[in-house]
Amino acid sequence: MFRNQYDTDITTWSPAGRLHQVEYAMEAVKQGSACVGLKSNTLVVIGSLKRSPHAELSSYQKKLAKIDDHIGFGIAGLASDGRVLIKNARTQAINHKYTYDTPISVQRLVLQISDKSQVSTQRSSKRPYGVGLLISGYDEQTGTHLFQTEPSGNYYEYKAIAIGARSQSARTYFEKNYQTFEEADEETLILHALRALKGTTGDNVELTSKNASISIVGKDRKYKLIEEEQLEPYLAKLEENAAATTEQQPAEQQDDVDEEMVQ
Amino acid sequence: MFRNQYDTDITTWSPAGRLHQVEYAMEAVKQGSACVGLKSNTLVVIGSLKRSPHAELSSYQKKLAKIDDHIGFGIAGLASDGRVLIKNARTQAINHKYTYDTPISVQRLVLQISDKSQVSTQRSSKRPYGVGLLISGYDEQTGTHLFQTEPSGNYYEYKAIAIGARSQSARTYFEKNYQTFEEADEETLILHALRALKGTTGDNVELTSKNASISIVGKDRKYKLIEEEQLEPYLAKLEENAAATTEQQPAEQQDDVDEEMVQ
Amino acid sequence: MFRNQYDTDITTWSPAGRLHQVEYAMEAVKQGSACVGLKSNTLVVIGSLKRSPHAELSSYQKKLAKIDDHIGFGIAGLASDGRVLIKNARTQAINHKYTYDTPISVQRLVLQISDKSQVSTQRSSKRPYGVGLLISGYDEQTGTHLFQTEPSGNYYEYKAIAIGARSQSARTYFEKNYQTFEEADEETLILHALRALKGTTGDNVELTSKNASISIVGKDRKYKLIEEEQLEPYLAKLEENAAATTEQQPAEQQDDVDEEMVQ
Amino acid sequence: MFRNQYDTDITTWSPAGRLHQVEYAMEAVKQGSACVGLKSNTLVVIGSLKRSPHAELSSYQKKLAKIDDHIGFGIAGLASDGRVLIKNARTQAINHKYTYDTPISVQRLVLQISDKSQVSTQRSSKRPYGVGLLISGYDEQTGTHLFQTEPSGNYYEYKAIAIGARSQSARTYFEKNYQTFEEADEETLILHALRALKGTTGDNVELTSKNASISIVGKDRKYKLIEEEQLEPYLAKLEENAAATTEQQPAEQQDDVDEEMVQ
Amino acid sequence: MFRNQYDTDITTWSPAGRLHQVEYAMEAVKQGSACVGLKSNTLVVIGSLKRSPHAELSSYQKKLAKIDDHIGFGIAGLASDGRVLIKNARTQAINHKYTYDTPISVQRLVLQISDKSQVSTQRSSKRPYGVGLLISGYDEQTGTHLFQTEPSGNYYEYKAIAIGARSQSARTYFEKNYQTFEEADEETLILHALRALKGTTGDNVELTSKNASISIVGKDRKYKLIEEEQLEPYLAKLEENAAATTEQQPAEQQDDVDEEMVQ
Amino acid sequence: MFRNQYDTDITTWSPAGRLHQVEYAMEAVKQGSACVGLKSNTLVVIGSLKRSPHAELSSYQKKLAKIDDHIGFGIAGLASDGRVLIKNARTQAINHKYTYDTPISVQRLVLQISDKSQVSTQRSSKRPYGVGLLISGYDEQTGTHLFQTEPSGNYYEYKAIAIGARSQSARTYFEKNYQTFEEADEETLILHALRALKGTTGDNVELTSKNASISIVGKDRKYKLIEEEQLEPYLAKLEENAAATTEQQPAEQQDDVDEEMVQ
Amino acid sequence: MFRNQYDTDITTWSPAGRLHQVEYAMEAVKQGSACVGLKSNTLVVIGSLKRSPHAELSSYQKKLAKIDDHIGFGIAGLASDGRVLIKNARTQAINHKYTYDTPISVQRLVLQISDKSQVSTQRSSKRPYGVGLLISGYDEQTGTHLFQTEPSGNYYEYKAIAIGARSQSARTYFEKNYQTFEEADEETLILHALRALKGTTGDNVELTSKNASISIVGKDRKYKLIEEEQLEPYLAKLEENAAATTEQQPAEQQDDVDEEMVQ
Repeated sequence: MFRNQYDTDITTWSPAGRLHQVEYAMEAVKQGSACVGLKSNTLVVIGSLKRSPHAELSSYQKKLAKIDDHIGFGIAGLASDGRVLIKNARTQAINHKYTYDTPISVQRLVLQISDKSQVSTQRSSKRPYGVGLLISGYDEQTGTHLFQTEPSGNYYEYKAIAIGARSQSARTYFEKNYQTFEEADEETLILHALRALKGTTGDNVELTSKNASISIVGKDRKYKLIEEEQLEPYLAKLEENAAATTEQQPAEQQDDVDEEMVQ
Repeated sequence: MFRNQYDTDITTWSPAGRLHQVEYAMEAVKQGSACVGLKSNTLVVIGSLKRSPHAELSSYQKKLAKIDDHIGFGIAGLASDGRVLIKNARTQAINHKYTYDTPISVQRLVLQISDKSQVSTQRSSKRPYGVGLLISGYDEQTGTHLFQTEPSGNYYEYKAIAIGARSQSARTYFEKNYQTFEEADEETLILHALRALKGTTGDNVELTSKNASISIVGKDRKYKLIEEEQLEPYLAKLEENAAATTEQQPAEQQDDVDEEMVQ
Repeated sequence: MFRNQYDTDITTWSPAGRLHQVEYAMEAVKQGSACVGLKSNTLVVIGSLKRSPHAELSSYQKKLAKIDDHIGFGIAGLASDGRVLIKNARTQAINHKYTYDTPISVQRLVLQISDKSQVSTQRSSKRPYGVGLLISGYDEQTGTHLFQTEPSGNYYEYKAIAIGARSQSARTYFEKNYQTFEEADEETLILHALRALKGTTGDNVELTSKNASISIVGKDRKYKLIEEEQLEPYLAKLEENAAATTEQQPAEQQDDVDEEMVQ
Repeated sequence: MFRNQYDTDITTWSPAGRLHQVEYAMEAVKQGSACVGLKSNTLVVIGSLKRSPHAELSSYQKKLAKIDDHIGFGIAGLASDGRVLIKNARTQAINHKYTYDTPISVQRLVLQISDKSQVSTQRSSKRPYGVGLLISGYDEQTGTHLFQTEPSGNYYEYKAIAIGARSQSARTYFEKNYQTFEEADEETLILHALRALKGTTGDNVELTSKNASISIVGKDRKYKLIEEEQLEPYLAKLEENAAATTEQQPAEQQDDVDEEMVQ
Repeated sequence: MFRNQYDTDITTWSPAGRLHQVEYAMEAVKQGSACVGLKSNTLVVIGSLKRSPHAELSSYQKKLAKIDDHIGFGIAGLASDGRVLIKNARTQAINHKYTYDTPISVQRLVLQISDKSQVSTQRSSKRPYGVGLLISGYDEQTGTHLFQTEPSGNYYEYKAIAIGARSQSARTYFEKNYQTFEEADEETLILHALRALKGTTGDNVELTSKNASISIVGKDRKYKLIEEEQLEPYLAKLEENAAATTEQQPAEQQDDVDEEMVQ
Repeated sequence: MFRNQYDTDITTWSPAGRLHQVEYAMEAVKQGSACVGLKSNTLVVIGSLKRSPHAELSSYQKKLAKIDDHIGFGIAGLASDGRVLIKNARTQAINHKYTYDTPISVQRLVLQISDKSQVSTQRSSKRPYGVGLLISGYDEQTGTHLFQTEPSGNYYEYKAIAIGARSQSARTYFEKNYQTFEEADEETLILHALRALKGTTGDNVELTSKNASISIVGKDRKYKLIEEEQLEPYLAKLEENAAATTEQQPAEQQDDVDEEMVQ
Repeated sequence: MFRNQYDTDITTWSPAGRLHQVEYAMEAVKQGSACVGLKSNTLVVIGSLKRSPHAELSSYQKKLAKIDDHIGFGIAGLASDGRVLIKNARTQAINHKYTYDTPISVQRLVLQISDKSQVSTQRSSKRPYGVGLLISGYDEQTGTHLFQTEPSGNYYEYKAIAIGARSQSARTYFEKNYQTFEEADEETLILHALRALKGTTGDNVELTSKNASISIVGKDRKYKLIEEEQLEPYLAKLEENAAATTEQQPAEQQDDVDEEMVQ
């Protein structure tokens, strides 16, 4: 467990120029259930694997959130931290619309969320947020966007990406297939997202309409959440095409994930 | 006792991406006497096992609280922390009614309570709350709800759930029977709650009209507390049906519970 | 002396979900001289054993305080902490009377005092109060009440209770006799209180009109303090009835009590 | 020197329910030069033994202070801390007179000073005061009073008392003689005070008009300080009566007193 | 890892008169991908090597930022910290233009950014910024400028300089060639920048129009960013001239660079 | 170096009732170069030994300061701390004159300076001042005064006193001669001061018009500083009378004085 | 490295009455490149040795700053800390001129800068400044002044002085020659300054018009900076007179100077 003496205070640099507390917060992201995202020229899809504290008795935890008609969030990591950032993002989106009478640009919102995260890495009074976000959005001027934010306050733009537990499998899937995404239609994108998610479920878990959910946003397309029965046609198609994906590489083992606080 | 060096400060992440102080606060919830909840399409029932510091001389500690006509709380853990959240919830319910002239939605109240809990997990000046809540409620639009909140600021929605000492026994009971709850009438729900509670009392303790209490809320049903003599008819029926439940699995031993500060 | 590493900060949870600093503050209560309380349907009596820093030269320390005509406090533990809570309670009682033109209810005052105590268990800037209170009161609507509050912010309602050094003896006495209290008259209640106190004095100390004091409050009965000469008739009667109580069990030894700061 | 790990923070309880930092502050009182007080029905006398940093070159340190015409203070312990409390008391006395047009009652002033001391025992930002006070006063309604206050915020009322270095000798003297104080006249009280002080001077120090001082206050008697030449007639009489007190028990050795910061 | 006991607090001097926390923050700069700058009499060029978290799926991280028409920034180190300083610089530039109706001078902006950095090295509440800046600018009065700022709050003016991982190679290149820069034209400066960057890419990485970017600002030349396709003609020319630079010394190995948080 | 665990925090009492941090601050006073004071019925003289960081190149440090026409300060210890108190005293003297149109009394000013010092011994945010003061003054009502203040906030009145390095020698001189001071004239007092100072210079240092300075204040005598050439007549007389003082006892060795920060 | 336990907190006194953190800050001054100062009756000259982070690519760091027409600063130590004090001094000079319509006196400015430094040695929230200043100035009334300030808040007035790395050599030079400075003309003073600087350059460094700079201020002489080409005539004369200074003692070795943060 122990690494060195520079890793307990948020405001302490290690001799190697690292901020260990920020890195540890990133570990919480890696332990959340996976979130995948991909985009075409006109659409952005986020898919998430939901967890349930007691499979039969409870509903599954929501991990996808609408920020505005043109922006959606997916989270991996500490759910309660994620809520704080979602709430903050909604407030900023509303304020922007109210002040300028235009929707907030995706890039601007990503920046504001990241700046808020940066503050928690520099001051001693608060810990860094333990959550990673996938941010999907569509701007009239700049088209579709898919961003990832980190506890460090860094953010990256992607064509396709996956975060959370066992997400390496999904990233590998995307690396093989991303060239075809640009012109893909909605159904194709959703099926890609589901196939990527499937690789992150772990050994004994099936991808079902209960534990998976999909969000979509894009050109002439207001944010829409697809889950439960609405998801089943897609899962059925996934089954049909299974032959095409049987050669899917097995997900790497990562069984020591803390199932309780992160999702 | 000792685990590692990352578990004494609220704002310190462990290298594994965990917040130990938050997990320790969850231990306090596990040591409180049990609280069980279940719901049908029209009603939500919470049952609690009450403790008494001196069985003969004192009354039993109340663990169920009315927040509004359509919302009730049950607590397990540090009673004084629970009071703070109950008081806060009542204020929010009243403010909402006053501002919007409609009752606050259950989901909204759960969110506000959870956001308040999250703050105590991120700042250095306060410790996390040592209490878990079951929140029962009925909304005109969305029907019956049963939520559980945690010291982490996470919350979950359930069909039926139990928290507190020896609550595993109750969860097992619910897992076996929950399919029948959806259409059950009030008396049936109350009897299920009492049977689940019975499994959490420990070896030498009987479930009586003194140490048990039930709350009920739902469609066309304002929050009602059932305890003392009002509870006895139900306990009598429980006795009659005892033959049906004699095969109840024994509660797991968990005798080292701190009886003083948590309830 | 040493227990573990989680017991020096107020805001630190132990891995077992305990707040050691709060528990240590409760120790201060156990070292104060005893305070006993009991009630009938119409009256509540608190008795206290007073200490004197220098038996001959000083007066004995007052431990009973009037909050309002219908509410009285008895304290065990750190006297100066107790004063803070008494002062606070008086202010709240006066404010309530001034604002609503009705006396504050006992339950409401208990809640406010307990909430104030809870705050000191959650924030890092103040230590928990080292004092336990017995609160006696009479409400028009709900009749007589006897509450005990703790440093944790928890409170309990009792028919009869004793706190402080060697108070187990008094609780045992109450357990044997409490069934008769409900209908008892004033004199009987006072004699019960004095008998219970007698068991807490320790080996070489007599119960006298100097070191004992009694408060009484109830229906049609404004708060009254009975001490010094006014107490002597009752002590005389106690003597007469001594034959009835010679079989009193010896108080357990607890001689290492700090006599200086707690009372 | 070392006792345990719970004694360096003001806001930390020890497992035994003690506040060590407060107890250590009381040690400073024990190391100040002695202060004695006694009272009759109509008069209160405080006597103090003054120290001088360089016997020949400096004047002796004043330890008696007038607060108002009817109240006086004597201090033992950290002189600079005592000054803070004296200044505070004078302000409160003046404010009371200005607001209510009556002199502040002795009890009320004692309470306010003690409440101020209590605050320093509960918050982390200030240390407890290292000074004990003897407070003499006369109220129209309640007659003469002699109080002692402690760093803990506790206070006690006495007929006669002594605090500071070697004060046990004075307390023993008072215990033998206090029954005669009630009706004693002014001169008798002063001589008692001087005799008690004499026992606290240590082996090689004489009681003189330089190192002793007396204050007196009471019925129809505004606060008066008696020192230097005014004290000599009394010291002369003490000498005359010496035969009566030659059997005085020797003061216990306590030579390691820090002479510099406390007085 | 361990050096000494004076290196964990921002506000602690070592006995040798050093501020270790500030030095550790400088390490973060050394781990960011390289940034190079050079200037002629009329133009200033900054070149940066961009990193990508997932080479195929993500775009490369932007490291060059326009502050105003006459000022540009390049960063090496913690990207999120860099963003804070960029945002701050833009605000200052706008405020200056608004207040004085003239563009802010480069020197003045450098000073304000450095003063802001100095504050984080002297106060305990914030850590030093983990980012180094190259600041290019043109003033009507004083011509072209190239500054470097450090986490310490120090800044330096250069003719040509390189910061970040493997930047020694670039500095060596500049030392050999800087005499020719003064009169060089735009294309020549850009090619110098690209050649210097090439030496910082590490063993298996090519300099491409994806991972390199150039900014240019100067006399009669508003800030312009050159990347992607616009950069390719320059890279082609670089290739042509490759013969001239084949004797380029190999970059020193420095493979343990943290690729995640710094850029 | 190490003494015990109670000596690093300003607000921590040791088990023996001591405030070690305050005592350590007093050490700084003992290491400053000496300051001596003495008074007659009508005059007060302070003499100081000045240090110079580089004897030839620098002037000697001023250690005597005028506060008002009737009050002067002499300092020993940390010069920069002394300046803070001098500045504060001047402000208080001016404010008093402005408000009441009379000069501030010496005693009142001493009290205010001491109260300011006491604050730094009780709060955690500031360290105690590392400087001792000699305060000379003349009041119309009460005549001449000579006070000494300490880092603890204590103060003492003297006929004659010396503080700082090797000051024991001066105090011994004063003890032998103080009886003659009361009626002495100005020149005599100054010569006494210089003789006392002479004993504090250490082995190889002469008392000269460069390193000595004298201040004088008193009845019908506004504050006057005597140094440089004005001091030489007195030093000449001292030489003449040398025969009378050759038997002067040698100063005790105390060579480890820190010459840099204290004066 | 380790000295004792009293040297990590700014507000902690050592048992010997020292403030180690302040002393460590003084070390930073000793590691800055040298700054020398000297004055005649009418002129004050400061000379500084400048460092350059990369000798060929960068300009040398400025170490001399004009505060007002009659006051100049030279710094040794942490450059960014020096800038804070320079900025502060300029503000004070402007405010004084604006308020009183006269230039600020040198002494007054030195006092204000020193008082600002003292604050950082007494409060826990900020570290002491790691910079020493030479302050040159001319007042109509009091003529030329040369002051040195320290991190401690102490300041000294000199005829000639040198601070920073290898400055002992310069001080030795001044000690030998200072008697001639008083009546020297401008050129002579500048040559003295350059000769003193020469001794501080270290073994392989020449004194050139690049790394040396001179400031001059005095009677009828507004602050003027002499560097680059303007300095070359003086360096040439220095060369001519070299025969006169060949016997210059070698500078003591002090090669472990941190070249990066201090200047």
